[in-house]
Amino acid sequence: MNGSDSSAPAGAGPIVVASQLGSAFAHILGAAGLDVRVHDQHTPPWMVDPDVNVVVTQPKCWVGAPAEQPAGWPGAVRFIQLGSAGIDGYPAWMFNGPVVATSRGVAAPPISEYVLTAMLTVAKEFDRLAVTGPEQWKARRLGGLYGARLGLVGYGAIGEAVATRARAFGMKVSALRRRGGVAMDGVEPAGSVAELAATCDHLVLALPLTPESRRIVNRAALMGAKPGLHLINISRGGLVDQEALLEALDHGPVGFATLDVTEPEPLPAGHIFYSHPKIRLTPHISWADSDTQVRLGEKAAANIRAFAAGRQPQDVVVAGAAY
Amino acid sequence: MNGSDSSAPAGAGPIVVASQLGSAFAHILGAAGLDVRVHDQHTPPWMVDPDVNVVVTQPKCWVGAPAEQPAGWPGAVRFIQLGSAGIDGYPAWMFNGPVVATSRGVAAPPISEYVLTAMLTVAKEFDRLAVTGPEQWKARRLGGLYGARLGLVGYGAIGEAVATRARAFGMKVSALRRRGGVAMDGVEPAGSVAELAATCDHLVLALPLTPESRRIVNRAALMGAKPGLHLINISRGGLVDQEALLEALDHGPVGFATLDVTEPEPLPAGHIFYSHPKIRLTPHISWADSDTQVRLGEKAAANIRAFAAGRQPQDVVVAGAAY
Repeated sequence: MNGSDSSAPAGAGPIVVASQLGSAFAHILGAAGLDVRVHDQHTPPWMVDPDVNVVVTQPKCWVGAPAEQPAGWPGAVRFIQLGSAGIDGYPAWMFNGPVVATSRGVAAPPISEYVLTAMLTVAKEFDRLAVTGPEQWKARRLGGLYGARLGLVGYGAIGEAVATRARAFGMKVSALRRRGGVAMDGVEPAGSVAELAATCDHLVLALPLTPESRRIVNRAALMGAKPGLHLINISRGGLVDQEALLEALDHGPVGFATLDVTEPEPLPAGHIFYSHPKIRLTPHISWADSDTQVRLGEKAAANIRAFAAGRQPQDVVVAGAAY
Repeated sequence: MNGSDSSAPAGAGPIVVASQLGSAFAHILGAAGLDVRVHDQHTPPWMVDPDVNVVVTQPKCWVGAPAEQPAGWPGAVRFIQLGSAGIDGYPAWMFNGPVVATSRGVAAPPISEYVLTAMLTVAKEFDRLAVTGPEQWKARRLGGLYGARLGLVGYGAIGEAVATRARAFGMKVSALRRRGGVAMDGVEPAGSVAELAATCDHLVLALPLTPESRRIVNRAALMGAKPGLHLINISRGGLVDQEALLEALDHGPVGFATLDVTEPEPLPAGHIFYSHPKIRLTPHISWADSDTQVRLGEKAAANIRAFAAGRQPQDVVVAGAAY
């Protein structure tokens, strides 16, 4: 995702950072030697002080942003560090002017751990193994990951982190990706989501939501899945046709779904996904671990320093790309 | 565990196998071209037909075996393939005469998957992540394996399989072992169980039960543990001082225990381990997966053919060794 057309030196002035990621995060940036102002999350990021030239922000600060570019944007703002890997939570006009970098890769360790936990829990029935009395002390046949096939829709930082861990378990791994990138070490390329669904035991969605990827997991792919398929979505709810998923779980071949994301979030009270016996629903939490903020702070500080020195920050959004 | 002093050619007669591992297993051996008789699990293995020279057996067939060697043992029996990795479930006199091989390594994939599932479930609170309504849709900080330290007591086939998977998660790994063996790639050697308990986040017992290893996880090690230590036992209940474990969970530093084995098995009804909030108790099932029988059959068949051809079977018990 590194672009090559958008880097610009910061010029002669001092770097003044407005951070909307809370005081703890601003402290991490301050400890890195940067002049940081904590900027309330409810203050519109397009109304920063006139001397601020770097903004660190996240999607929830842009809820209710005007559809049209406000007069005066971007003012002195020349670099924006996002606290998110995706860019679907920001208005299009935000990208007019400043260099924008995502937090791609920061959450790959915790998200890949979530994915492996989900696969292992289903394969080994780990949530149903505990016994509460001697009459339950009986062996039975369990499944496993060794020799099973994992399908990855998307092969960015998260897909790669999942593949590395899955291969250590002796899984076979196939992946579908939109464009070239890092070499897929030991991972077989796939041609379509339907092909992955039909051939894999676990199918993981690790791609951004764009107009092209909306409902990429459609009815045909779900109803043509390998019997018992376990679907895992840690990206965006809009990638899946949720009605078709319900049908494929109840009357089709899909065996289980682990969903950390839905559309909308949260689902309304009483939605069938909250109580379905073949669905594990978690509250968009797969990215969370105790070190994510630290890793994001390190990445933001390095990117701000690079920008100030006239170098290219990492994971800059390419002009015109959907992600 | 490969010995070098106990191999003997089978001589001129035909190989006749008595298998006590059930009809499905006998079918696997038969498909490998061996003359196999299914031998009921309740028939004493020291009373096989006089022409049987190979016995495939497991600990439960030896419950109630005489303390003294019966007259006529071992008869024509010259090779015994065990369906267990340990040899603590057999009378000492069984080893007088026949070459005995264990099933070491057959269960390493499922057991290592059980161990990783246990660690991930505790670190990521995976059994408490699911939501049943929109009011629960909240992010919170979770733990993880990345950067955490795993301690292995024992480094045989299971320890190695656990270490391989743990390292793919970015864990640091330390191991204690009684004697040399395979190189510990990327694994740091440790000096004692107490040292491992004091420095690790997860402590896995992967060693046989012998007079020397009985209660190797003692009160001192448990009370001196790193705060929050997660103990995982997939070997034998007798390795742990269970009274001291309870005290260390209730009033000491140990944070959680995942126990697939206890002493005795099963624990009596009403035992505190069945209901303790810091214990997950499973019924000696970590070895179980759908392919264990197949892998054991392949190993047994290869070992029987090797023995018949006068070659050394794999994982022969060394005379006089405790495991």
